Amino acid sequence: MEFGIDEKTQTILGMIREFMAKEVYPLEPYFLGKSFREMKPKLEEARNKVRQMELWAPQLPKELGGVGIGFMGYAMACEEIGRSPLGAYIFGSQAPDAGNIEILAKYATEEQREKWMRPLIRGQIRSCFSMTEPEFAGSNPTVMATSAVKDKGDYVINGHKWFTSAADGARFAIVMANTNPENPSPYQRASMIIVPTDAPGFKLLRNISVMGHAGDDYGTHGEIMYQNCRVPQSNLLGPEGQGFVIAQERLGPGRIHHCMRYIGIAQRCFEMMCEYAAKREVTEGKTLATKQIIQGWIAECRAEIHASRLMVLHAAWKIDTQGAYAAREEISLIKFYVANTMLKVIDKAIQVHGGLGVSDDTILSFFYRMERGARIYDGADEVHKVVVAKRILRQYQAQVA
Amino acid sequence: MEFGIDEKTQTILGMIREFMAKEVYPLEPYFLGKSFREMKPKLEEARNKVRQMELWAPQLPKELGGVGIGFMGYAMACEEIGRSPLGAYIFGSQAPDAGNIEILAKYATEEQREKWMRPLIRGQIRSCFSMTEPEFAGSNPTVMATSAVKDKGDYVINGHKWFTSAADGARFAIVMANTNPENPSPYQRASMIIVPTDAPGFKLLRNISVMGHAGDDYGTHGEIMYQNCRVPQSNLLGPEGQGFVIAQERLGPGRIHHCMRYIGIAQRCFEMMCEYAAKREVTEGKTLATKQIIQGWIAECRAEIHASRLMVLHAAWKIDTQGAYAAREEISLIKFYVANTMLKVIDKAIQVHGGLGVSDDTILSFFYRMERGARIYDGADEVHKVVVAKRILRQYQAQVA
Amino acid sequence: MEFGIDEKTQTILGMIREFMAKEVYPLEPYFLGKSFREMKPKLEEARNKVRQMELWAPQLPKELGGVGIGFMGYAMACEEIGRSPLGAYIFGSQAPDAGNIEILAKYATEEQREKWMRPLIRGQIRSCFSMTEPEFAGSNPTVMATSAVKDKGDYVINGHKWFTSAADGARFAIVMANTNPENPSPYQRASMIIVPTDAPGFKLLRNISVMGHAGDDYGTHGEIMYQNCRVPQSNLLGPEGQGFVIAQERLGPGRIHHCMRYIGIAQRCFEMMCEYAAKREVTEGKTLATKQIIQGWIAECRAEIHASRLMVLHAAWKIDTQGAYAAREEISLIKFYVANTMLKVIDKAIQVHGGLGVSDDTILSFFYRMERGARIYDGADEVHKVVVAKRILRQYQAQVA
Amino acid sequence: MEFGIDEKTQTILGMIREFMAKEVYPLEPYFLGKSFREMKPKLEEARNKVRQMELWAPQLPKELGGVGIGFMGYAMACEEIGRSPLGAYIFGSQAPDAGNIEILAKYATEEQREKWMRPLIRGQIRSCFSMTEPEFAGSNPTVMATSAVKDKGDYVINGHKWFTSAADGARFAIVMANTNPENPSPYQRASMIIVPTDAPGFKLLRNISVMGHAGDDYGTHGEIMYQNCRVPQSNLLGPEGQGFVIAQERLGPGRIHHCMRYIGIAQRCFEMMCEYAAKREVTEGKTLATKQIIQGWIAECRAEIHASRLMVLHAAWKIDTQGAYAAREEISLIKFYVANTMLKVIDKAIQVHGGLGVSDDTILSFFYRMERGARIYDGADEVHKVVVAKRILRQYQAQVA
Repeated sequence: MEFGIDEKTQTILGMIREFMAKEVYPLEPYFLGKSFREMKPKLEEARNKVRQMELWAPQLPKELGGVGIGFMGYAMACEEIGRSPLGAYIFGSQAPDAGNIEILAKYATEEQREKWMRPLIRGQIRSCFSMTEPEFAGSNPTVMATSAVKDKGDYVINGHKWFTSAADGARFAIVMANTNPENPSPYQRASMIIVPTDAPGFKLLRNISVMGHAGDDYGTHGEIMYQNCRVPQSNLLGPEGQGFVIAQERLGPGRIHHCMRYIGIAQRCFEMMCEYAAKREVTEGKTLATKQIIQGWIAECRAEIHASRLMVLHAAWKIDTQGAYAAREEISLIKFYVANTMLKVIDKAIQVHGGLGVSDDTILSFFYRMERGARIYDGADEVHKVVVAKRILRQYQAQVA
Repeated sequence: MEFGIDEKTQTILGMIREFMAKEVYPLEPYFLGKSFREMKPKLEEARNKVRQMELWAPQLPKELGGVGIGFMGYAMACEEIGRSPLGAYIFGSQAPDAGNIEILAKYATEEQREKWMRPLIRGQIRSCFSMTEPEFAGSNPTVMATSAVKDKGDYVINGHKWFTSAADGARFAIVMANTNPENPSPYQRASMIIVPTDAPGFKLLRNISVMGHAGDDYGTHGEIMYQNCRVPQSNLLGPEGQGFVIAQERLGPGRIHHCMRYIGIAQRCFEMMCEYAAKREVTEGKTLATKQIIQGWIAECRAEIHASRLMVLHAAWKIDTQGAYAAREEISLIKFYVANTMLKVIDKAIQVHGGLGVSDDTILSFFYRMERGARIYDGADEVHKVVVAKRILRQYQAQVA
Repeated sequence: MEFGIDEKTQTILGMIREFMAKEVYPLEPYFLGKSFREMKPKLEEARNKVRQMELWAPQLPKELGGVGIGFMGYAMACEEIGRSPLGAYIFGSQAPDAGNIEILAKYATEEQREKWMRPLIRGQIRSCFSMTEPEFAGSNPTVMATSAVKDKGDYVINGHKWFTSAADGARFAIVMANTNPENPSPYQRASMIIVPTDAPGFKLLRNISVMGHAGDDYGTHGEIMYQNCRVPQSNLLGPEGQGFVIAQERLGPGRIHHCMRYIGIAQRCFEMMCEYAAKREVTEGKTLATKQIIQGWIAECRAEIHASRLMVLHAAWKIDTQGAYAAREEISLIKFYVANTMLKVIDKAIQVHGGLGVSDDTILSFFYRMERGARIYDGADEVHKVVVAKRILRQYQAQVA
Repeated sequence: MEFGIDEKTQTILGMIREFMAKEVYPLEPYFLGKSFREMKPKLEEARNKVRQMELWAPQLPKELGGVGIGFMGYAMACEEIGRSPLGAYIFGSQAPDAGNIEILAKYATEEQREKWMRPLIRGQIRSCFSMTEPEFAGSNPTVMATSAVKDKGDYVINGHKWFTSAADGARFAIVMANTNPENPSPYQRASMIIVPTDAPGFKLLRNISVMGHAGDDYGTHGEIMYQNCRVPQSNLLGPEGQGFVIAQERLGPGRIHHCMRYIGIAQRCFEMMCEYAAKREVTEGKTLATKQIIQGWIAECRAEIHASRLMVLHAAWKIDTQGAYAAREEISLIKFYVANTMLKVIDKAIQVHGGLGVSDDTILSFFYRMERGARIYDGADEVHKVVVAKRILRQYQAQVA
């Protein structure tokens, strides 16, 4: 067992950390008051600096135009980049584009690569991933109503999706739709289809207002109606009926990246809490840092962030060395453990900041609002707990339902 | 011991409950997307209906133009009215006007009553209460820098205040300022002074953006600069140097009303959680209501709401029968206990609603954001805990610092 | 609503409180090192003092030889008496005798009253209640294997029971056994039968060792085998097949008494925690009472004990005025809420006491061990939570399983 | 970063695991009912088997008669051995002997090694470590009253110690006593002195009853009076005045071993919980394993045990590669985090077992009682939290007291 980090990775992490502090954090106050579209020129500037430093797309190998720091290296980079809500976008590793690129890299035809993947990698266009439907619980993604029926060389898609993040302004969506509804296995019914957002029948009904804001452009969650939406059959991505299998593959690594981002947020809020406690006087020349209750929180948060980081890196190592299937218990565990750690740290940091903490004069209130979803999206805590417990209990020959 | 509620009060509570459901909730979706100013005509309409039903100003005795249901009756009414963020405004019992009226009713000169109190009671003007300063911890309100110096029949006020709620659009502020800075007791240094918002030197710097919104009009938290702000000495409210004594008096009853409002919110979210669990299907024709983890939450939330309500009503009874001083332990206890109960219930209700819970398609996300401050405003949880513990420990002859 | 306590009750509570401090607590150190049998002479002495003060059997009306303070009065007395594990025995209100007396008073024939109830009331004999079976979950008491078959004027009982508290040294058991196994309703299958412990076929297999001690005499949990155990049919208690209905009746009020006892324990540990914190020096002439983390615990424990007491008294009032059926939600809520409060307070009190807290130099470690069962006995927390949640959810037309 | 375990270590861990299951667990039911002295022959038998398998003293290098698996290897072994309260004794790695051997190996003169260390390593004698005093808080061990004064070639020791574990039956104590009370640094005042338990003036006052049992022989916590207790000056262990420095050195590694033992206990209780849930039927042919609340606990316990293990192994690695000083934050963190994880898992395992869980028919109730001290001994949770928080806050230039 060996917990050290090699020097090359450390160097890159250090560069990212410095860039975040110097170039990204200063954009945040501006970001909190503006629309995303207004922000774009400034973000593009920052992106260009990243490109110049050759830190663009740290999730990708060099041959695809990325940094090439490997799976473990990128996991650690996610923590640094994740410290700001602007980080991933500026580094070209934002969801859902990064995940879509991963799928395209593995399954796209050369034509699809040229048309969709390469511009996406370069950050020239954006994309979205259209799976969740309002009528069905996200905890059971195989149940969906959206259908894609073949008709004269096309797929004709009908369905209702929501929480399609970043749909507003995206050039295309990867849509999950039932192409083989009669297949006995619910895992073999859906396919992934590339749908340009200007295809006939693609209707972005609204950007769903979440936590007080509908947002715009990249910072949105779309509700979309597919009404006889028609795309050529050549837009099928990967084998027909294999939509879930492909989605599944992407899930484990994606979880690692999300969790490292959560840790980045937790770590940043932790530092803000310490810093504010150290300087804020309360009574008789005493700062908040002298208060034992706050000291208790700091120690507990420290422990849980540390635990979170070790667990996620361990899970990443297991994926890397034994594959995602072998690591599925670890992948489930980190989802709920780390999301809860992050939200606890955010909450304590706000409490230490008092009135300032609920104001938008710091980034804390943004995280409080926008990361509450971490315990819900991508499988609620409880879904993951039940899944992991059932898997364990079956080892004891238990019936579990 | 007798926990029953008399029939007359029950009738009025029933009327309020019905009015809330029929007239107030339907305004909420509109409210969530509009500015307060845009809302005003609709709110005024609703206020008129309240006036016609003779439910206006339930906090006031009949002789002041209120409903006259007494302290306990109003406490219970607060729960019903508090179920919507629009309730108190529509019933004419909104903070900080209600508290300001209370002070004016007790301390104002006849001239002040005529000019400020009566229009306030009638809902023709609004007011604010300007105490907290950014440079000093809210937990120790006696330490402030704002001064009011006598000069040629006037007070000249200089200071910097923030979180002056509802300042935007208010006709006047009750300002807490040091008039007797040399007084040996920190509790005898400040006075309350009525400052019209159009007085020279009153500058509303900004509506502080809180949880993503700066708001407008009534729904704001102002940052204000008093720069040689000049008002006649006849604007002194109550005896000079007695600002804290007066503020203190108002605190106990005010805490009851806030806590009953918290309970109203908790109770509403609880009902939404049950209702959604009962109807939302997840797998195999099973609803969320069949899930034991959710059942566990429902039972725990039920217990804590029930405990909260009993504790607040007990504290109200003690204030009513023995005075606020005798009840100060109970008043401290409810502050942190009930705020935490409310936030726990909101959190669980969101979790049950899943993605819908973080969207603005329900009121839950509004409560999640805007009520986080309940653990901070008016003394953070930890401040109240320490205060109550020290008081208890002193009964054991403990040194406590 | 009115939270006051009448003077007469206050006087009696005061007498009990004083007696507990003066006569009962001093017996505890002796009790912690001895067997119950060795203790008996001292306990009998204390019982005699109680009888002389006319405080014997506070649970009973005067006509049955008790104090006659009514249901609410006794509930409050339970808190005082419950502060010591010796209290209830010394006051003649110990479980399971008190509950058995209640049943006998309502259902016994005159002969049964003379033979079993009156000596029990006078404290001349002891009894036990034999229901739980090792093979079946306590959460579903209607499922049991013990049978009582009529044979020549007798019942012949066969079955295996455990956690029959106080069986060792009891004169008789009230045994729950299936007499009508063919009845379609599982609630109508069992009867209560009085079984003298010297009846042929009654075998006390062992006193189950619990938390390190098997105990002796009153302080035990028996495992019993009924092997063709034969008693006359006249030993049937109440109507045949009505065992559960009778048991149910006793449950609500019994829950109140248990919960008030939990509160007594919590309150005592709370006081010990404060007292120790006030006197224990740690560093630089500072006591534990100056530590903010401990202050936080004290405030939280205070709030939860207060909440618990109000909830239990409210439930008692509801039982008293509207009957146990109307109060069943409240009765379920207090079971888990109050048991958890007690265990939390015990835990914090131990933590404050440090090494002394885990030693037997105080009573804390006894409570820690022996009251852990409070979250299990008489329906585990989770069972109660699920029951109460299902009842609530059904009001929303939910399917709940 | 690399989380794998080498094959040789895996083999030895496997051997230990198997031995624990086959030879150690079966002794437990016997152990729970007997005195330690009665157990000794059976324990000696088991020890002999360990010696034959060459697994004796896994904490020691081969040259001192141990297994020689290194620091990381032994850390992992502690988890396996710690699964039973009998494990460490049977493997010759029981506290406080193991720690005393470590000190002796580093500081003892050849004479002391021959007389005390070698028989201790071979398990022929036992020892104890006498530091904590009843009048002073364990959280500040530098403050003590016990003195050792030089007189005619001897030390004359006077003092009052308690919680001197395993004093009953020990051949000698390592006593911490002030030899240099005038030294300005409180860390340079005390020395370690070897005191044979048959030295004049050594009085074992009592075995302190802890959680209901005073115990005997190895399983005890002694209260000791040193009354003009006289030993030759050659019994000084290490340099004079360096008692704390030496104690400190031992602390970090000792913490690792304790924490791995906690994990062993947690893991065993976790497995018992799963096993029982899998087989215990509750209603309608359904086992506890089907209950979602229990599934939730299993997942949470799994996550926290996993986190604990990674944190402890990481701390061990850091001690091993960078020294205990560099790892002091990690060492503080694991103390409270892991102790709480263990106690949470024990608690949940008991709750799943119901009445059986509080009985002594399983080992759970033993762990519940005897491991409560883990949050207290060796620095209470709160002490460690405050220490770690202050160290962090000082990095932000905070005053912390």
